[in-house]
Amino acid sequence: MAAEEDAEALAAARPLLTDLYQVTMALGYWRAGRARDHADFELSFRRCPFGGAFSLFAGLRDCVRFLRAFHLRDTDVQFLASKLPPDTDPAFFEHLRGLDCSRVTLRALPEGSLAFPGVPLLQVSGPLLVVQLLETPLLCLVGYASLVATNAARLRLIAGPEKRLLELGLRRAQGPDGGLTASTYSYLGGFDGSSNVLAGQLRGVPVAGTLAHSFITSFSGSEVPPEPMLAPAVSEGPAVNLPAHVKVWLERVCAHLGLGKQEPHPGERAAFVAYALAFPQAFQGLLDSYSVRRSGLPNFLAVALALGELGYRAVGLRLDSGDLLQQAQEIRGILRSTAARFQMPWLERISITVSNNVDEEELARLVQEGSEVDGIGIGTSVVTCPQQPSLGCVYKLVCVGGQPRMKLTEDPEKQTLPGKKAAFRLLDADGSPLLDLLQLAEEPSPQPGQELRVWPRGAQEPRTVRPAQVELLLGLWVHRGQLCQPLPPLAESRAFAQRSLGHLRAAHRRLQSPEQYQVALSEQLQALVGSLSPRSSP
Amino acid sequence: MAAEEDAEALAAARPLLTDLYQVTMALGYWRAGRARDHADFELSFRRCPFGGAFSLFAGLRDCVRFLRAFHLRDTDVQFLASKLPPDTDPAFFEHLRGLDCSRVTLRALPEGSLAFPGVPLLQVSGPLLVVQLLETPLLCLVGYASLVATNAARLRLIAGPEKRLLELGLRRAQGPDGGLTASTYSYLGGFDGSSNVLAGQLRGVPVAGTLAHSFITSFSGSEVPPEPMLAPAVSEGPAVNLPAHVKVWLERVCAHLGLGKQEPHPGERAAFVAYALAFPQAFQGLLDSYSVRRSGLPNFLAVALALGELGYRAVGLRLDSGDLLQQAQEIRGILRSTAARFQMPWLERISITVSNNVDEEELARLVQEGSEVDGIGIGTSVVTCPQQPSLGCVYKLVCVGGQPRMKLTEDPEKQTLPGKKAAFRLLDADGSPLLDLLQLAEEPSPQPGQELRVWPRGAQEPRTVRPAQVELLLGLWVHRGQLCQPLPPLAESRAFAQRSLGHLRAAHRRLQSPEQYQVALSEQLQALVGSLSPRSSP
Repeated sequence: MAAEEDAEALAAARPLLTDLYQVTMALGYWRAGRARDHADFELSFRRCPFGGAFSLFAGLRDCVRFLRAFHLRDTDVQFLASKLPPDTDPAFFEHLRGLDCSRVTLRALPEGSLAFPGVPLLQVSGPLLVVQLLETPLLCLVGYASLVATNAARLRLIAGPEKRLLELGLRRAQGPDGGLTASTYSYLGGFDGSSNVLAGQLRGVPVAGTLAHSFITSFSGSEVPPEPMLAPAVSEGPAVNLPAHVKVWLERVCAHLGLGKQEPHPGERAAFVAYALAFPQAFQGLLDSYSVRRSGLPNFLAVALALGELGYRAVGLRLDSGDLLQQAQEIRGILRSTAARFQMPWLERISITVSNNVDEEELARLVQEGSEVDGIGIGTSVVTCPQQPSLGCVYKLVCVGGQPRMKLTEDPEKQTLPGKKAAFRLLDADGSPLLDLLQLAEEPSPQPGQELRVWPRGAQEPRTVRPAQVELLLGLWVHRGQLCQPLPPLAESRAFAQRSLGHLRAAHRRLQSPEQYQVALSEQLQALVGSLSPRSSP
Repeated sequence: MAAEEDAEALAAARPLLTDLYQVTMALGYWRAGRARDHADFELSFRRCPFGGAFSLFAGLRDCVRFLRAFHLRDTDVQFLASKLPPDTDPAFFEHLRGLDCSRVTLRALPEGSLAFPGVPLLQVSGPLLVVQLLETPLLCLVGYASLVATNAARLRLIAGPEKRLLELGLRRAQGPDGGLTASTYSYLGGFDGSSNVLAGQLRGVPVAGTLAHSFITSFSGSEVPPEPMLAPAVSEGPAVNLPAHVKVWLERVCAHLGLGKQEPHPGERAAFVAYALAFPQAFQGLLDSYSVRRSGLPNFLAVALALGELGYRAVGLRLDSGDLLQQAQEIRGILRSTAARFQMPWLERISITVSNNVDEEELARLVQEGSEVDGIGIGTSVVTCPQQPSLGCVYKLVCVGGQPRMKLTEDPEKQTLPGKKAAFRLLDADGSPLLDLLQLAEEPSPQPGQELRVWPRGAQEPRTVRPAQVELLLGLWVHRGQLCQPLPPLAESRAFAQRSLGHLRAAHRRLQSPEQYQVALSEQLQALVGSLSPRSSP
C-alpha cells in the first residue's frame, strides 16, 4: 500500500503541476536575494459556495502528502530551464534541485471543519521561494475538495440522516483524478459511499454497485447458463435449477399482477437470473431497461421470489428514468401486495434506490414525507457542483520577514487581511458557533466568559461578544517538514463534519437565504488593516 | 519521457478507476458463461453542450493510452475479491488477472473532430466482459476532454483568430488531473497556451506566466538587490545600476503623467526591478496590486523606459481587476503619449493582457471593435465549464454476438440506436458539412453525387440529400490491442479542429440560438430501430 500511495502522491501532486508564473517569480526572488526570506501565506475563500452560509474544509490530507513528497527531479528542472532565459544563472537551477519542504510549516483547520469566508484554511510558512511555488498545487488540492464536500453536505442536509446517498459521478468528473477527489470528499461531506472502486482501494471509501442497462440488454433470453443450479441459502436441501424455478414464479407473478406471461422481456429475465446466480445473497435489479411495470418489475419479482423460496432475500431494486418518486410509491405498493400474496414479508421492505439527474430540488422531492425511496444515487450534481463549479480560493502573502503585507488594489473584495493570524471560533454555552474571530498571532487568546470587542467584517462599528467557549481553529500539522500529528481517518473526518454541522445554528445551516455567519477582526487586526489602507490617510 | 508517460498513464487511468457495477457485472457475465461473447459498444453524447449546435471530440489519446496499458495487478484483484461474495469461484479472479485489451478494437473520430449528438465518438469491440469494464474510464476520459475543448472552441470563436487566449484555471480544476486535462484540451480547442507547467512538460502545451500580486506585495522597497547591475542588451557599453536608473526615469514619468513622485508604491517598483533583473528580455508588469493609475503604471513605465534605454523592450503588462476594457483603452493612450514623449515608439504597442473572471459575455466585450486588449487569461470559465459542467456521454451496448441490441425504456431520450454502425459526414461542394449519416456497418457507403434517402433523427419523414463529398468518420485506431496509426501531435489536432470549425456553416457555428445540425439514419437503420421498438407492434 505504501508504494501505491507514493504513486498516487506523485501522480496527484507533482511539483510541476503549477502555474509558470510561480517559477518566473522564483527566479525573481532568487535574483533579488530573497529566496530564503521567511514568508507567511494564508489560503482562504471569499464567499461561501452555492448561496449558502457555510463551507466545509477538505483536502488537508492531500496537501500534507504533497508537501512531504515535494521535490523537483532532474527532468523537472531541465524542463523549467527550457522555459526560462538561456542566460539564467545555473546556480538558480541548483537551488531548485535542492528544494524540499523541510523548512515549511503548515497550520490548518482540521479536515471536515466548518469554514467561513476570510478565515484561513491553511497557513503556510517557510522560505519565500518555496512557499510561493506551493500556491497553485495547494489551491488545486483544497478548492475542489472543499467545494465537493460542501456540496455533499448540502445534499445530506436535504436528504436527512436516514436516506442512503451514493456518489456515482466518476464518468462526469474532470478526468480520473477529479473523479477520485469527488468520491473521496463527497463521502467526507456526508455521502454513504461511492461507485468508484479506486476511491475504495486508495481512500477506504465504501463502494457500491450492481448492474447497468448494458448487462440487461446483452441478454436475449436464449442464453443457457453453464451452471444454472443454485443450492438453498442455509438448509441442506438439494440445489435447484434457478431459471426453471424463475419461470414457474413468473407465471404466478404475472397472474397476480394481471399481466400476460409473455409480456416481461425474456432477455431482461435471463440477465436477472445470471446476476442472481452470481449474487444470490445480494440480488438487486435495475428495472427500466424495457418497461418497469410490464417487464422489469415482474421479472424482478419472479427472480426475487424464486430466490426467496431458497432462503435468499433480494436486497433491492433500482430505477434510472421516469418519475422516480411516483414509481417508488407504486412499486412499494406492489411489493406489499406481492409479499402478502406469497407470504414473503421481507419482500415489502427491500430497498428502492433511484438515480437520474438528481439535483437539490429533485432530491428534496424524493425524500419528502411518505416517500418510499430508500437510496439515491447522484452523479453529475454532486461531482460537477453545477450551481457553482469553483470555490475560488486564494493564497495570499500576509507577512514577509515578520512584516505584515497587504494587497490593497482598487477592488475592495480583492483586498487581503495582513499579518500572521490566529483564528478562534467563539461558541455559546450549547456549543453553537457565535462567530469566528481573526486576530494577530501575537495577541492573547480570547477567554471563555470574558466580554470582548470585535469588528465584524464589512461592518462600520464594533460589537461585543461574550463566548461561553473558545476553540482554537488552526492546528499545527507539519512543522518544518515533519508531520506533527496523525491525520485522522477519512471516516472520522466525515463524522466530525456531521457533528460540526449539527452544532451550527439552523439560520446559518439552511440552504436558501441563510443568515450569514459573522467573521470578525480583533481591534488590533482592525487597526493594522486601517494603518495599511490608503483610506486611513485622508 | 517514456517512464514519465507510463507513470502518467498509470495514474490517469488505472483499471480500478471504474464503477463497482462494472465488476459485479463482470462476475455476472462470467457466471453466465458470456465473458468472451463478442460485444460492440458505442460512446456518444445526447445533446451538444452550452446550447450550441456543435461539439469537439477530444480524449482519444488518453483512451488509447489507457487501453494499451490496461491490466489488473494482483493488489487490484485482491481488492476486488474483498468486495465480492466470499464464495466467488477463484477461477473468476484468475480470469481477471489475465485480462488485457489484446482482443479489443477501437474505432473513433479523429481527435479534434466536430461531433454531433448520437454519432459515435468511440466504437469499442471485443470480449463482453472486458469492453464492459472499459465503460467508466472511457466515459471519464472522453467526457470532460470533449467538453472543455468545445468550451475553448466557443471562446476562440468569440475572441477571433488574433487575440491571445491563455488558460489559467489549474487552481480551479477538479484536482490535479482535472487541471492537466483542462490545460491540454483547452489548447486543443483553440487556446494559445496555458499557465500549467505540467501540461507543457507532459503534453507539449505552450506555457506562459509572469508574476502574481504576492511577488509584488512581498517587496517593501527597502530591499537591496545583491546584483543591481544590468548590461545593455546588445552594445558593448558598461552595465548600469538598474534601480538607480529606474529612479531617474520615475521622476520623468511622474512629471509626464502629472503625478507626485512619492505616489507610486516603492515596494511595487522594487518588485518590478527584481523581475526586470531576472527577465530583462521579457519584462512584464502586473499593474493592480495598489493603484493602476497612480502606482502600477508609472512604476511599470519607469522600469520599461530604463530597460529601453539599455536596448531592452518590455513585452507586456497585465491587469487583473476593475473594468478591464476601459483600463486597457486608458493605458494604451498613456503608452502612446509616453512612447512619443520619450521617443521609444515600441512602447506604444506592448501587449496588454487582462484576466479576472472572464466569461463568454465579458470576452465578447473585451474583444469588441477598437479594444486595446491583446491577450485574455481565462481560468474558471474555461476549466469548470460553468454553463454546463458535464457533457453527459453514454456508452451503450449496440451489438452482442453479432445481434443488434437496443435499450428501449419508456424515456425516448434514453433509447439507444441498435447495431454496429458506420458514420459518414456528407458535405457540399465547398466542403461544408450537410449532415451526418449513421448506417449499419454492412451497408454500402454513400457515394458523392448520388442522391439518397435518409431519416433525420426526430423527424417523422425521410428527406433526400445529394452530397458532393463523403467523409468516413470513424477511423481504426486500435486493432486487437495494436495501435494502427500514430496519434497526431496535439498541435496538429488543434489545427484540425480549427479547420473543421471553419467549414461548419455559420448557422450551426453561432453560439446563440444556432440552427441544429442534422444527424440522419439510413433507411436500413431506421427500419431496424422500428423493428426493435415496441411502438412498431400495434
